[in-house]
Amino acid sequence: SGRPTVTSGDGRFQAFLGGQFQYDVGGAVQGNLNPGASRLDSFGQNLRRGRLFFGFRYDDLQLNVTPDFGGSPDGSVGLYEANLNWTPVKPLTLTLGYFKPWITLQDSMSSNDFLFLERPSIVEIARSIAAGDGRSVVGGRWTQDRWFASAYLTGDSYGGNNTTQATSGQTGGVARIAGRPWTDADADLHLGLSGSYAFDIRRTGSGQSLQLRDRPELRIDQTRLIDTGALPAEKAYTYGPEFGLRWRNFLLQGEYIRIGVDQARSGAAPRPDLEFDGGYVEASWVITGEPRKYTTSGAAFARPVPAEPFTLDGGGWGAWEAMARWSVADLNDHVTRGRAQAATGGVYGGRQEVIGTGLSWYPNNYLRFMLNWDIVNVDRLNAAGTQQIGQRFHSIALRSQLAF
Amino acid sequence: SGRPTVTSGDGRFQAFLGGQFQYDVGGAVQGNLNPGASRLDSFGQNLRRGRLFFGFRYDDLQLNVTPDFGGSPDGSVGLYEANLNWTPVKPLTLTLGYFKPWITLQDSMSSNDFLFLERPSIVEIARSIAAGDGRSVVGGRWTQDRWFASAYLTGDSYGGNNTTQATSGQTGGVARIAGRPWTDADADLHLGLSGSYAFDIRRTGSGQSLQLRDRPELRIDQTRLIDTGALPAEKAYTYGPEFGLRWRNFLLQGEYIRIGVDQARSGAAPRPDLEFDGGYVEASWVITGEPRKYTTSGAAFARPVPAEPFTLDGGGWGAWEAMARWSVADLNDHVTRGRAQAATGGVYGGRQEVIGTGLSWYPNNYLRFMLNWDIVNVDRLNAAGTQQIGQRFHSIALRSQLAF
Amino acid sequence: SGRPTVTSGDGRFQAFLGGQFQYDVGGAVQGNLNPGASRLDSFGQNLRRGRLFFGFRYDDLQLNVTPDFGGSPDGSVGLYEANLNWTPVKPLTLTLGYFKPWITLQDSMSSNDFLFLERPSIVEIARSIAAGDGRSVVGGRWTQDRWFASAYLTGDSYGGNNTTQATSGQTGGVARIAGRPWTDADADLHLGLSGSYAFDIRRTGSGQSLQLRDRPELRIDQTRLIDTGALPAEKAYTYGPEFGLRWRNFLLQGEYIRIGVDQARSGAAPRPDLEFDGGYVEASWVITGEPRKYTTSGAAFARPVPAEPFTLDGGGWGAWEAMARWSVADLNDHVTRGRAQAATGGVYGGRQEVIGTGLSWYPNNYLRFMLNWDIVNVDRLNAAGTQQIGQRFHSIALRSQLAF
Repeated sequence: SGRPTVTSGDGRFQAFLGGQFQYDVGGAVQGNLNPGASRLDSFGQNLRRGRLFFGFRYDDLQLNVTPDFGGSPDGSVGLYEANLNWTPVKPLTLTLGYFKPWITLQDSMSSNDFLFLERPSIVEIARSIAAGDGRSVVGGRWTQDRWFASAYLTGDSYGGNNTTQATSGQTGGVARIAGRPWTDADADLHLGLSGSYAFDIRRTGSGQSLQLRDRPELRIDQTRLIDTGALPAEKAYTYGPEFGLRWRNFLLQGEYIRIGVDQARSGAAPRPDLEFDGGYVEASWVITGEPRKYTTSGAAFARPVPAEPFTLDGGGWGAWEAMARWSVADLNDHVTRGRAQAATGGVYGGRQEVIGTGLSWYPNNYLRFMLNWDIVNVDRLNAAGTQQIGQRFHSIALRSQLAF
Repeated sequence: SGRPTVTSGDGRFQAFLGGQFQYDVGGAVQGNLNPGASRLDSFGQNLRRGRLFFGFRYDDLQLNVTPDFGGSPDGSVGLYEANLNWTPVKPLTLTLGYFKPWITLQDSMSSNDFLFLERPSIVEIARSIAAGDGRSVVGGRWTQDRWFASAYLTGDSYGGNNTTQATSGQTGGVARIAGRPWTDADADLHLGLSGSYAFDIRRTGSGQSLQLRDRPELRIDQTRLIDTGALPAEKAYTYGPEFGLRWRNFLLQGEYIRIGVDQARSGAAPRPDLEFDGGYVEASWVITGEPRKYTTSGAAFARPVPAEPFTLDGGGWGAWEAMARWSVADLNDHVTRGRAQAATGGVYGGRQEVIGTGLSWYPNNYLRFMLNWDIVNVDRLNAAGTQQIGQRFHSIALRSQLAF
Repeated sequence: SGRPTVTSGDGRFQAFLGGQFQYDVGGAVQGNLNPGASRLDSFGQNLRRGRLFFGFRYDDLQLNVTPDFGGSPDGSVGLYEANLNWTPVKPLTLTLGYFKPWITLQDSMSSNDFLFLERPSIVEIARSIAAGDGRSVVGGRWTQDRWFASAYLTGDSYGGNNTTQATSGQTGGVARIAGRPWTDADADLHLGLSGSYAFDIRRTGSGQSLQLRDRPELRIDQTRLIDTGALPAEKAYTYGPEFGLRWRNFLLQGEYIRIGVDQARSGAAPRPDLEFDGGYVEASWVITGEPRKYTTSGAAFARPVPAEPFTLDGGGWGAWEAMARWSVADLNDHVTRGRAQAATGGVYGGRQEVIGTGLSWYPNNYLRFMLNWDIVNVDRLNAAGTQQIGQRFHSIALRSQLAF
């Protein structure tokens, strides 16, 4: 992929270096707020991703170590991945260590290729349970031109014991299967299914708990507007179908995701099993005509490659793309307006709906500028079920990205 | 600059790696202290800077990512810079991201070239407001043989939201203009002017505030002896002239800096606008005769290049340099001895004066050893204005540096 | 050592990059516990070491900077070393900066070559006093085919002032001398002696203190079962003899270590000087016949190099090794069962005994899988000397390692 590479004399040992820089500027446009609603950053900056990829290959072994100097928020250095890979036969790769295992169509896209700055909230919430960045895994992936299958046993995430020591780490699994029933020069039809299951939630001295939440699809401010709080969970699962259709320089894709949480019994308190859901539909039109090609190694659609890179002497204008998305995440369950959530054992986590539009400019194959304008609507009651603490607001943000 | 570089076959893509290692050993020599005065580290070590520079160039684009494993104190890994640069025409470079924008003559020197271990306190304080390391910027620089001009819009610094989320980030700007009205083989005369303005100070849930302070020009101990505390600031600005004169192997340079802080009104409490100031004069004599050459890309003076690098077989002794500095920073304003600062709305931040002498040895172009002996005098009253909490002491420190 | 290297045109400047990945999975098998005994992680993961080595050589100078993205526990990025090395004459290397100075036979092995996942507890405790990773040093090492000698003045460790500022850093020293009185193709006999002395323990605003403790030779759970608590120490020392004997593909090695702590006087409270001790014996049998060669640069035994690397097409099975160890660390001193430790001025730190067996597989020169099964027995009374808070349990863990 054009990464600077150093190769040993016999060609068996290779070291390569990659970089990813995503720097966001923007903020939320809010008016007066309900009491209890959160004031977000009206203007700020954030290094969303600042990664250096170090890869080392020896015959069919590969070690990947990727520190991340960005984050949510930036300021503390972390690790995106550190894993060992073995490719015993060609389309199969076995992986051990901290890794981002495949789940959902959206999370299978490179973060350089996203249509919007952030993944839809329901995808973020789903992947936080037994997948996501820096997840402890062992498993493998099989990729062919028309088929993709992957399955991993997963444990805790990098740094899980950094503040509190587990007395029993999480155990779970994540799997994905996807295919292209139709593909020709003009079109790709993608269908898929993925899910995850946490057999046993991480346990610490104070018991087991799981918290589902997300920011409003913008990470310049780190406040989460939908949040279940700590649920006394024993198990949890996620699943959902994937759909994608490219026709020439148009792309339409979407997913529906369902999340279940089994709560632990506790005396006479009601502890029903909970279900949350959400989904999104998003579309892209590459104005300058380049297609979003299908990547078989991840079974997802990549960003367009500019046909005529931008140059000052008039050689070209790069690629331009317009995007739109509708995204819903509903973290309310087993609650009745006016009744406290403790009375029913449910949770007023809130329902978030985001309508977004965007514009991308790709001056060349490495550089990208991406403008997002989102309308966010959060409908959420307080724990007593008596007061609206949600809000409706706009957010505007510009991402500057360089990646290779 | 001699950095290890990997270039792609067509020469369009280059990756290079640099390093900076500054390791300090030393401490403060204090006697008995006034009650309320601080006991400093009498003997310690600190990795002042431990940076790895990763640079990636593609045609006229350049990405810089520089983690810092040192610090003040060392022990937590940070980021010196992560920025995207574009050079559309030759002497102009546009920069976006976390960067150290140009301000003052002192801060325009590389930290490898400093005459003393630390910048004068008034420069540290001035650059902390809207410039400094890892500052969010967008702007540009124009450099020619005789002229230098730079201007950046600036925001918050890297990690600004790491402990507390802003509800509105800082907005400001910083600019510098400098020139060499006289230059020949024997001499360079440098004149310049730089300043910064924070239009709107960073706002969090608990309001806006700005704290001006610095360590006693030594960072083995991290205690600050002059400190305004958190000022309820709405705006702040800095400005000052720059002067530098090289004649052969002698260098004399100095600056005067003025800092203003507009305090927010608050009921009947007095909240006058505050002004602080300070300056420094420093001189270098390269005993072995090498000049401190002028760097046009930064409009500042570089360290000497040893004419005869040190070798064990008697090839040479490297370069030797003697240095001296007088530096003042005054953070008292609108106060009267004996009256509490709350009564006048001013602040007893303290006045610090440092007289330093030093000796440097440059065995070769990469290595440097630097011994500093400072006499520090801090005159500071407590908030009630009734008790002296300052002190006079000596400090001695040795820096070992390797940089390329 | 096969590390990817970039060399400048004239060959004087070299940059090289190395990596170390150690990822552990496993846990403790505990039954019912005494009141006061700790529940450990029954199943977890940890990136024990995730290091990237950056080395820069210029003639006889070398700069090493090694960040560590793993740890105990993983999750916070640290620095293994950052130091400057000068080799004025061939077998002598002088070192300045943060470094792991030589102490004990065990700590002189590379962490890639260990017989067991962790060093014996008594070695960990001894090296924590004035040696260990990221220790501030100045000193040197002289290595020849039959002799090894090293001595360093040492100070605090990297990050020592990160949470509390010292008012006086620790000063001490560490030295080691070792030799091979017998060496031939079939055998190596190693004898050595090493020790350390902290002349003056690190002092902060709340005085001087030293805490001796360790985990049960497993770092998936970070709980320490033996621990002296903070001792009011003025000085401390360690010393002990080293023994190692290789015969063909068998290795037997062991050490005995004695640790002394001089406590500060405090009124009439008893503050006797304390002595702790421990030791270990460990053995390795490389089933496939490869020897553990002696490394003269560190005066210790390296891991076996597989004669026939593993390949899928039946080329070979790599190297296989069986290991066993008995390890004791006793942190009880000046205590009498039934009497509170405050009454005697001693400490019930606890006595830990670990009997371990292991199996290693080295598919090739870079990769290693290492299975450990330990039986841990901790005998420890509470501070009142009236209650047993120790326990006996098993632990099982698998390390996957790639290093070059």
